[in-house]
Amino acid sequence: MIVVKIGGTTGVNIEAVIRDVATHVSAGQRMIVVHGGSGETNAISEQLGHPARFVTSPSGYTSRYTDRTTLEIFAMVTTGKINTLLVEQLQRLGVNAFGLSGVDGRLMVARRKDAIRIIDPETGKQRMLRDDYTGKIETVNGDLLRMLLDAGYTPVIAPLALSLEGEALNVDADRAAAMVAGAVGASQLILLSNVPGLLRQFPDEGTLIRHIDRDKVEPSLEFAEGRMKKKVLGASEALQLGVGQVIFADGRVDTPVASALAGNGTIID
Amino acid sequence: MIVVKIGGTTGVNIEAVIRDVATHVSAGQRMIVVHGGSGETNAISEQLGHPARFVTSPSGYTSRYTDRTTLEIFAMVTTGKINTLLVEQLQRLGVNAFGLSGVDGRLMVARRKDAIRIIDPETGKQRMLRDDYTGKIETVNGDLLRMLLDAGYTPVIAPLALSLEGEALNVDADRAAAMVAGAVGASQLILLSNVPGLLRQFPDEGTLIRHIDRDKVEPSLEFAEGRMKKKVLGASEALQLGVGQVIFADGRVDTPVASALAGNGTIID
Repeated sequence: MIVVKIGGTTGVNIEAVIRDVATHVSAGQRMIVVHGGSGETNAISEQLGHPARFVTSPSGYTSRYTDRTTLEIFAMVTTGKINTLLVEQLQRLGVNAFGLSGVDGRLMVARRKDAIRIIDPETGKQRMLRDDYTGKIETVNGDLLRMLLDAGYTPVIAPLALSLEGEALNVDADRAAAMVAGAVGASQLILLSNVPGLLRQFPDEGTLIRHIDRDKVEPSLEFAEGRMKKKVLGASEALQLGVGQVIFADGRVDTPVASALAGNGTIID
Repeated sequence: MIVVKIGGTTGVNIEAVIRDVATHVSAGQRMIVVHGGSGETNAISEQLGHPARFVTSPSGYTSRYTDRTTLEIFAMVTTGKINTLLVEQLQRLGVNAFGLSGVDGRLMVARRKDAIRIIDPETGKQRMLRDDYTGKIETVNGDLLRMLLDAGYTPVIAPLALSLEGEALNVDADRAAAMVAGAVGASQLILLSNVPGLLRQFPDEGTLIRHIDRDKVEPSLEFAEGRMKKKVLGASEALQLGVGQVIFADGRVDTPVASALAGNGTIID
């Protein structure tokens, strides 16, 4: 079982990823696709007169501020548009893709971070932010995914979860992919983005780190810039959950999945 | 098995419908919910600078003109927003709801009406319209629905289908509900809207037709105004597919499902 996370980042060759996923599924490989959608949510939020806002935590992680209106736009774009179009593309290539988000059948249940500590961009001081519909996934319904896979469907997952109280929440797609990979006991988790992997000196692609020992994931956080921090955290979580190997790989190449499986990227095992 | 279609029409008490569905599911009744979303799609299309357009067929049926941009907005709103929020509301009431659209696992496969005959609103003459992403459902994957129901999930279905060529299509939600009811051998198909049922003299609610014999559905088309025409066609299709009873019922009351099952509305059997 292979879990592939497609970043919504500009530069990732979605068409190539989809074609490569279809090739592997047609060859009998069981796969699950997890996707994001931040970029497109930002564009549509702007058009709908509710521009995206981002907050930074004291430890330097940047995340979307998701009030209820933003949550509904996020659901609309990720689950309704991106997910549907990915499923459509896979179906056209003969893959019986099945789109779902974490709210469907309680696929992903998360703890809502109803109060998060942020750095106020104006004062530079810490303060608490409430009314945020963001969550940290606690459980993934592996039985549901196995049922779909056993029936011949290829799950395509949008990054929404259900809170313990039954509210839809925005969750980080990299960490969702890690939790999904753990729940189904994946042999590989491939995180595709617009860089060749973890770089010792970002953005110098010549400084690609080719291998990280599974015991040395946390220290490699120091090399992670921006979004890459969550990928490293996701990798650490996935390995702890028993995933065989995590690969940070280049989503811009012609056959991103095959290339990652051939050893290109940052391999953590 | 009961299939309930919720209109997106203004006036339908969605919260009451959801509460009533939850009551029935909690009591052990197997149910499937099918919904529309025209109204909200129109509002968001307008906000996104791509206002909805409608066309009328020579026989007087009005439908949405769905170019590719409209299809993507329709998918976004119905599958991403309306479906997700319905699933969220049911989950909050303890129902393990599962949202999907017809593209997921080829739930609904439709024939694309790639050229439709319309009445040109300017000239009043007939002409052909192409590039329309609308379809007529041909098959519903009943095995998929039974698998979900057997596993304890309550399917909530958005009105998208996949064409024979693998394109996402906009389909009529009333007729989708009819085909779904037929595929699972439903005992009842309840079509809720903002009127008490089929009216002999629309909009006089005192002229409610209480019963139509299953052999006399087609003639009752003469009483159907606008959207009601498709409900009558859906009823006819559902009965032909073996559904026990079709009920056109009032979605504005406190317990719309219980009220319909108690015999309020237009009963066709």
